[in-house]
Amino acid sequence: MKVSQLIGERTKERPADCTAPSHTLMMRGGYLCSVASGIWSQTSALRRVTRKIEDILRGEMEAIGGQEVQLPVVMPAALWQESGRYESIGAEMARFSDRNGTPMVLGMTHEEAAVHLVREYGRRAERYPFMIYQIQTKFRDEARPRAGLIRVREFTMKDAYSFHTTQADLEDYYSECHRAYERIFAKVGIPEVVSVLSDSGMMGGAVSHEFMLLTDIGEDSIAVCADCGFHANTEVLRRDDGICPVCGKQSITVKRGIEVGNIFQLGTKYTRAMHMTYRAQNGEERHPLMGCYGIGVGRLAAAVCEVRHDDRGLVWPMRIAPWQVHLCAVRADDAAVHSTADALYKQLSSCGIEVLYDDRDVRAGVMFAEADLMGVPLRVVISPRNLENGMAELCFRDSGEVRMVRTEALCTQISLLIRSQSSES
Amino acid sequence: MKVSQLIGERTKERPADCTAPSHTLMMRGGYLCSVASGIWSQTSALRRVTRKIEDILRGEMEAIGGQEVQLPVVMPAALWQESGRYESIGAEMARFSDRNGTPMVLGMTHEEAAVHLVREYGRRAERYPFMIYQIQTKFRDEARPRAGLIRVREFTMKDAYSFHTTQADLEDYYSECHRAYERIFAKVGIPEVVSVLSDSGMMGGAVSHEFMLLTDIGEDSIAVCADCGFHANTEVLRRDDGICPVCGKQSITVKRGIEVGNIFQLGTKYTRAMHMTYRAQNGEERHPLMGCYGIGVGRLAAAVCEVRHDDRGLVWPMRIAPWQVHLCAVRADDAAVHSTADALYKQLSSCGIEVLYDDRDVRAGVMFAEADLMGVPLRVVISPRNLENGMAELCFRDSGEVRMVRTEALCTQISLLIRSQSSES
Repeated sequence: MKVSQLIGERTKERPADCTAPSHTLMMRGGYLCSVASGIWSQTSALRRVTRKIEDILRGEMEAIGGQEVQLPVVMPAALWQESGRYESIGAEMARFSDRNGTPMVLGMTHEEAAVHLVREYGRRAERYPFMIYQIQTKFRDEARPRAGLIRVREFTMKDAYSFHTTQADLEDYYSECHRAYERIFAKVGIPEVVSVLSDSGMMGGAVSHEFMLLTDIGEDSIAVCADCGFHANTEVLRRDDGICPVCGKQSITVKRGIEVGNIFQLGTKYTRAMHMTYRAQNGEERHPLMGCYGIGVGRLAAAVCEVRHDDRGLVWPMRIAPWQVHLCAVRADDAAVHSTADALYKQLSSCGIEVLYDDRDVRAGVMFAEADLMGVPLRVVISPRNLENGMAELCFRDSGEVRMVRTEALCTQISLLIRSQSSES
Repeated sequence: MKVSQLIGERTKERPADCTAPSHTLMMRGGYLCSVASGIWSQTSALRRVTRKIEDILRGEMEAIGGQEVQLPVVMPAALWQESGRYESIGAEMARFSDRNGTPMVLGMTHEEAAVHLVREYGRRAERYPFMIYQIQTKFRDEARPRAGLIRVREFTMKDAYSFHTTQADLEDYYSECHRAYERIFAKVGIPEVVSVLSDSGMMGGAVSHEFMLLTDIGEDSIAVCADCGFHANTEVLRRDDGICPVCGKQSITVKRGIEVGNIFQLGTKYTRAMHMTYRAQNGEERHPLMGCYGIGVGRLAAAVCEVRHDDRGLVWPMRIAPWQVHLCAVRADDAAVHSTADALYKQLSSCGIEVLYDDRDVRAGVMFAEADLMGVPLRVVISPRNLENGMAELCFRDSGEVRMVRTEALCTQISLLIRSQSSES
């Protein structure tokens, strides 16, 4: 892709009303376009990132036996009346009547539709456990959308639903999914995400965990014990004295975090309400136990940006970067620069390397500032001066390291770098 | 994937209210689950098909320079007021008020959101032409949903929007997209799709074409000239005398078809209404010309089923089949059968071949009937009798051909078959 043909405007100025770095930098880098409060269009730069995240999510869900399905965005209210949530959920659920006057809702989560899909299949005990997941648009009418993709109204979510005949089996699978989530966060480039036991869990109800990325712009408060490593949502602390409920020491500090995923042991709440049963060996009809597991795709991309950026712009991890290489032809009006950069663009592309190619007639300073802003991991600079010696600059966006490489060795060296950076963690 | 773990029920009986073969067979094969009138859940078997179709669509859109974006499903009414369509579209558009009382709509098409996204970028003449596309959920409140995925209310659509500064450039790109559509239909397995000039075109307005799959269950009528090959929507024929408007002979017959895609030269309708302009060389502000190009993913899958099935079930083309091989272990209780089939399942899977493995303890007749119904292109049958000679049956779902193959040669032979069938047309 040539920068000159890339739809999306890069700007120097911070747009008004941007406070979170991910929001500011995605706007400035031409990744995002606001359509309404909490409703966004993604340009192709961001869509390339979200597709890579979706592929990682898909891979990890398949690895733990998940079957990808597609559940509807628009559902009849009757389905939500079965579970009781049509009444219990408030203004955050969008509702409308269809042309026949039938009340409909927009899905903000899909427990009801999941049970509806597997209710017949799940009548036989020997078919358990099983898990379905989807990557689908959802709408939640948030009162206060904020911070770009951190808190939105329309979002794409990976939501998964597992079904079990025993609590032990649910717990095993829940742990397996917990580990899959750790792999997901490591792969997208934020291995520092921590899981915290959330409120419902500590209160003796069903167990649930939130996966938190600790950062100052987060909306959640997390109690962290400096001594034993205990983490929990502050809602679960019954005392305000800084004493850790696990190790007993006065070592709790409160940090802020973004919730980037959550997992729940739902038990029989939905299967009971929606009359999903299987026949146990003793002939008894029983309600299966459910787990559910969510990750918002756009919020995850934004969370990565919150911790992977610097003063100059975004610093995408290799695995989810929109492109792997940003090729800059400095003085593209110079015939040698132009032909070398063109040839390299073709060579890299034919090796399956994703290249954003800047062959515009702009000053080097402008070109580099925009490259820094967009945050592609590797940069290759072809300039008249270095080309005289048959060399090019290979720059690393994260460390700032610059290597001089012979132009004919670039493709091989870049391929190796991409391979190693894509298999880390 | 093992059949025993595949979510979705296969049934012998034709469900009530199914008339179209695609609807009947997708229901009987466990591909589909009805949630409400015109609203469906897809099981993983169908999701595997739609994902492959989406990948084909993506590949062909990228090949003609398209940039994948993501536009919102839920949009503010104000955006549709800009184009005038908020008023001109009737009950088929779903509308609701958000929690603040702001009127919102569900997208049934995205011309407004597309213009909104590129309006700033498109201010400079030298940036034209460009094209954006997305694969996204849409909702159109059809009065009479019918025939499974043929006419629905919620659907996934590939919609593309191109922008141009001259009519000639729009026409060139329109032709390029027409050719891309021909490649798409060939790749998904229905090269017999024809394009017909549609009403608006013949009436002198903007040009548009519909891509039609001729089949009796279609809802559209197409005039076909047996002599010169002229095709058009019957709405464009001004006379009812069977005389071809092109060759003048009395050779018109009327056939029925399913519309599987459409392309439109929109001109400046949206860019004018929404004040999108660029500065021409002479300094004048001009409205760019637009084209738009749609293909419904689910309807395309259903259309393939309409013409690729027989009395026993579906007959998926290799490129979009949910799995490439259906492996049947007949008498899986026989130790040799079981271990051979297990080993083959692993071997094929490790070669990247997608296998649906039936190792259930059911009669061969039941197993084969279900395999016929599901329609996977290649079937491998491991049975005690053939295994005595070190052989297995390799069966072709489309032709009915059966070959005896030595078990150790299966993987190689299947790989070659898949490769050749995936590169046809």
